[in-house]
Amino acid sequence: MTKTTIFPKGEKATEYFTGDAWVEMLTTDTKNFDVMSYVVTFAPGSRNYWHSHPGGQILYCISGEGLLQQKGEPIQHLKAGDVVEIKSNVTHWHGATPDKEFVHIGVSTQLSKGPTTWYGAVTDEEYTNED
Amino acid sequence: MTKTTIFPKGEKATEYFTGDAWVEMLTTDTKNFDVMSYVVTFAPGSRNYWHSHPGGQILYCISGEGLLQQKGEPIQHLKAGDVVEIKSNVTHWHGATPDKEFVHIGVSTQLSKGPTTWYGAVTDEEYTNED
Repeated sequence: MTKTTIFPKGEKATEYFTGDAWVEMLTTDTKNFDVMSYVVTFAPGSRNYWHSHPGGQILYCISGEGLLQQKGEPIQHLKAGDVVEIKSNVTHWHGATPDKEFVHIGVSTQLSKGPTTWYGAVTDEEYTNED
Repeated sequence: MTKTTIFPKGEKATEYFTGDAWVEMLTTDTKNFDVMSYVVTFAPGSRNYWHSHPGGQILYCISGEGLLQQKGEPIQHLKAGDVVEIKSNVTHWHGATPDKEFVHIGVSTQLSKGPTTWYGAVTDEEYTNED
């Protein structure tokens, strides 16, 4: 089995993902910092649903090969060391490539602006649309 | 030479550090997210000055062996996978152990609460005081 070499893999996500993904919360105090942070491990081919964060989200890529799409833009490839700033209210999804696991830290910023909004699943057609 | 295997090492820090340390900024937009984030590489024996953040700071330990002291508490040992939440206005310092390099991501949260306050250098006596 694949696993992250730095952070624990955490629990299998039960909603808002297509395929297998695991989430481990990294911080506990959302009140003092106004952020939430976690590590996500995506099995090859897995991805989360289209969603948006009122306060934005930052991804710090730790290992593997990932994909990110912000609504209206082409799919972007991610690798270890890449850092992505997803601005407030931008609808997007992220996940692994079809063949490789992908691990990122995520920081949801300005939590006080409100909770994540989840939309529908990323279809296979959307996931493989590299035009 | 040692280096991080995930993120770039960045530029050598020119102030507020004892010994050699390198800082690479990881995010650019402080306005949208209200955070600043960076990777810091501490050479063995190096550490930053006593300081505090009005909005708090989170450290995500990536590699090596580190030390952290929050004012009035014992020195804490850090390793890859450890995550530390340093609350608002808590005076503290962090750095490498005497023998090992240390790399962490740092996220300074709630930047809008104001800039970091820097105090004096951590003396050799403080750095080695493991009581």
